[in-house]
Amino acid sequence: MEGEQQSSGILRSMDAEQLREHAHKMVDFIADYYKTIESFPVLSQVQPGYLEKLLPDSAPDYPETLEHVLNDVQEKILPGVTHWQSPNYFAYFPSNSSIAGFLGEMLSAGFNIVGFSWITSPAATELETIVLDWLAKALKLPHDFHSTGQGGGVIQGTASEAVLVVLLAARDKILRTVGKGALPKLVTYASDQTHSSLLKACQIGGLNPEFCRSLKTDASTNYALSPEVFSEAVSRDIASGLIPFFLCATVGTTSSTAIDPLPELGKIAKVKNIWFHVDAAYAGSACVCPEYQHHLNGVDEADSFNMNAHKWLLTNFDCSLLWVKDRSALIQSLSTNPEYLKNKASQGNMVIDYKDWQIPLGRRFRSLKLWMVMRLYGLEGLRNHTRNHINLAAYFEDLVGQDPRFKVVTPRTFSLVCFRLLPPANTEDTNKLNRDLLDSVNSTGSVFITHTVLSGQFILRFAVGAPLTEQRHVDAAWRILQEKATALLGSL
Amino acid sequence: MEGEQQSSGILRSMDAEQLREHAHKMVDFIADYYKTIESFPVLSQVQPGYLEKLLPDSAPDYPETLEHVLNDVQEKILPGVTHWQSPNYFAYFPSNSSIAGFLGEMLSAGFNIVGFSWITSPAATELETIVLDWLAKALKLPHDFHSTGQGGGVIQGTASEAVLVVLLAARDKILRTVGKGALPKLVTYASDQTHSSLLKACQIGGLNPEFCRSLKTDASTNYALSPEVFSEAVSRDIASGLIPFFLCATVGTTSSTAIDPLPELGKIAKVKNIWFHVDAAYAGSACVCPEYQHHLNGVDEADSFNMNAHKWLLTNFDCSLLWVKDRSALIQSLSTNPEYLKNKASQGNMVIDYKDWQIPLGRRFRSLKLWMVMRLYGLEGLRNHTRNHINLAAYFEDLVGQDPRFKVVTPRTFSLVCFRLLPPANTEDTNKLNRDLLDSVNSTGSVFITHTVLSGQFILRFAVGAPLTEQRHVDAAWRILQEKATALLGSL
Repeated sequence: MEGEQQSSGILRSMDAEQLREHAHKMVDFIADYYKTIESFPVLSQVQPGYLEKLLPDSAPDYPETLEHVLNDVQEKILPGVTHWQSPNYFAYFPSNSSIAGFLGEMLSAGFNIVGFSWITSPAATELETIVLDWLAKALKLPHDFHSTGQGGGVIQGTASEAVLVVLLAARDKILRTVGKGALPKLVTYASDQTHSSLLKACQIGGLNPEFCRSLKTDASTNYALSPEVFSEAVSRDIASGLIPFFLCATVGTTSSTAIDPLPELGKIAKVKNIWFHVDAAYAGSACVCPEYQHHLNGVDEADSFNMNAHKWLLTNFDCSLLWVKDRSALIQSLSTNPEYLKNKASQGNMVIDYKDWQIPLGRRFRSLKLWMVMRLYGLEGLRNHTRNHINLAAYFEDLVGQDPRFKVVTPRTFSLVCFRLLPPANTEDTNKLNRDLLDSVNSTGSVFITHTVLSGQFILRFAVGAPLTEQRHVDAAWRILQEKATALLGSL
Repeated sequence: MEGEQQSSGILRSMDAEQLREHAHKMVDFIADYYKTIESFPVLSQVQPGYLEKLLPDSAPDYPETLEHVLNDVQEKILPGVTHWQSPNYFAYFPSNSSIAGFLGEMLSAGFNIVGFSWITSPAATELETIVLDWLAKALKLPHDFHSTGQGGGVIQGTASEAVLVVLLAARDKILRTVGKGALPKLVTYASDQTHSSLLKACQIGGLNPEFCRSLKTDASTNYALSPEVFSEAVSRDIASGLIPFFLCATVGTTSSTAIDPLPELGKIAKVKNIWFHVDAAYAGSACVCPEYQHHLNGVDEADSFNMNAHKWLLTNFDCSLLWVKDRSALIQSLSTNPEYLKNKASQGNMVIDYKDWQIPLGRRFRSLKLWMVMRLYGLEGLRNHTRNHINLAAYFEDLVGQDPRFKVVTPRTFSLVCFRLLPPANTEDTNKLNRDLLDSVNSTGSVFITHTVLSGQFILRFAVGAPLTEQRHVDAAWRILQEKATALLGSL
């Protein structure tokens, strides 16, 4: 691909002018995608195995053209894409793409550095430290989380990795005190609403899964973890000779955006010498707004705090932000120092090497996109972004409240509305009714919502958060829900 | 950012035409970067803390323009970038950016889906399965690794994650047989040349670090693991009541591209019921060439195989490819099934949910870039790409061999040359001499190489692999090495 073929039309592995020409075409392809995004079914309607029927069963020996590939993207790939960026996407939680985030991804892919150590691109490490401090200030996180002290922030891929690395740091910290043999006695705590990534982290870390306490919640606390329940569990475990060492509290649970009472939980954790992690993966984005920052009250008691800029803060996936108060605990668990990575700056402890704050060695230049998002929108832009979605969710909540056939089942705090269709007199299986409504609505391709189960009840989740979503999309989604409900109820 | 500001010049969170306009500007910025890439010092010459002096200490409240940001990238970020894509980059191992890989990154960032389960974008899962099968065929991996049987391939972020997930699968598999209490007795094996990510994986998995055997190698085997040494270690451990369960062999070690003898090691592992992982993170790319495929002989005995398309196969970082023979072992260790992620396709076991093959929950649409690389270059293009670098390394090896002051210290197999400056009569510290040569060469900014230590000797590594590297860059690098050597030797 090099040398003599340079002047021919064959695509070189890298060449500035060929890159320019082809990338301009890709920009137009992607801009056209966004222009026509509402024309696709939000939830892909293909059947399992659809793609192997459309693609050859081995790679081509010789190059094909970009036009050929883009044609295949249009005809074969796009039908299998679920359009997370569609304004009619209300499923799970959002995963924001934005113009600034996309530009940051481009620039990061352009440099294509692998920033494991400071020396591999000092700007990648230093910009990450700086923008994490910027966001810590915007969220009014306590100063202990800033890089200027013993703590600091780091970009992880996902909240799963964030909770894993702090769990490992906490595990190794307590084992340094009580001895390695105590691993089977360690106990973690979280509510039964906590994200499944905590249990996965416990499995990975070799903890006894029986001692990963999933503490029961119910409607009486709006599915928040009760400090009394936590305190009793800890006392019981200590009495049994076990060793409580980790608590994960959530601000904005996945099922219903429940908010665990951080101040009370944090006080208990502190007294009992338990690492206190706060997972605000989704709701953290709203906390750039002063009027939502009180939901983080109590975070000053936490040892670590996580939010996903890639969910709802206009930063393309992946970009999960983790702050810790004691970075040395992370580094003690995750550092390696092979000869081939040694360099003066690292050996002299003059710099941060983020490889020692995370699971992988290599890392992309992800701070670029977060930096570009913060600069191209400004904090006011980010505040308006989340406020707008929260307002649209409140609007949807009102719509649901006006139709007596439906019920909002938990108080709405952020941009998620949990609701269900109520049973008419002639049906008993309300869960099946709502499951059927979900399937019926999603099969239209005009809207995509998902579900959860709370206290045994099948609940519909309507999560506003796609950047292109406007009131008309919320109205259209609600119309479809009403129509499908009418059809279902009529057929009973 | 929505609604009333739509018609103004303010950047919206997303808008097809604003995206088009801004992304075209970014394309030109990046193409210009590649056009001028040789004008920058390859290794950034900034001092620790340089960036905080250049940037404000908090995020702006109001939006700034792309021009302003790009100006800062040029003036403040670029000096802190180490240019992995420079043709004068010969450090570590390469991290290829390519036109096709870059286009794939753009498209993936454009869709910005989070493909944890099949339903979240069936195309993302199915294309991944298909292209991993394509590459398995191109590498002539045994059929057991194809998705059509009990095995299959998956894209991990890095080789660190690949070795971690198979270590966890192997750990849990053996513990299901011998009981969970046996965790402290488990033993892993690898040579002392094995990548540091294995030890990190052991730490993460809660294994006893003392029982992570780092078996000694030396020049007599060109730093490959001796089957006898492995076999004796296993026997000794079994006799001590320990439980051998995991072997990591490497094809192309990080220090010197040593190749462990897969057939012999694999046979021992099989007899002893030890999970056999093959790490070909770097050298796997060369094995798309028929003339290098024999280096994978014996991989049919392996339980898992890993190579990094993001190193040397023109696929932008990150894209680490892992194949396993028994996908159920991975899934048993890594699956979670919370209510909010349930869907018909997953519950019916009709599809692959790659979330259960990896550490994180969320995942980017990374198969797009690998697919585009394979299609836009074809297998012949990829073969020529690696052959070209291997030829340039052989050429460099010849240059070194012609200068009696230098010595090639291990046989060159792929595109890495390990060499050192020999001591003149009047110096004893050859290691310091070579360290000084390394610093002297890298401080020119005209070339970037790194080092390793083999048998206590400080060795210089010259790794060819950047897509833009041509013979003239190798010549220039060698000239600098010679000049700096002359200066150093003259000053003794």
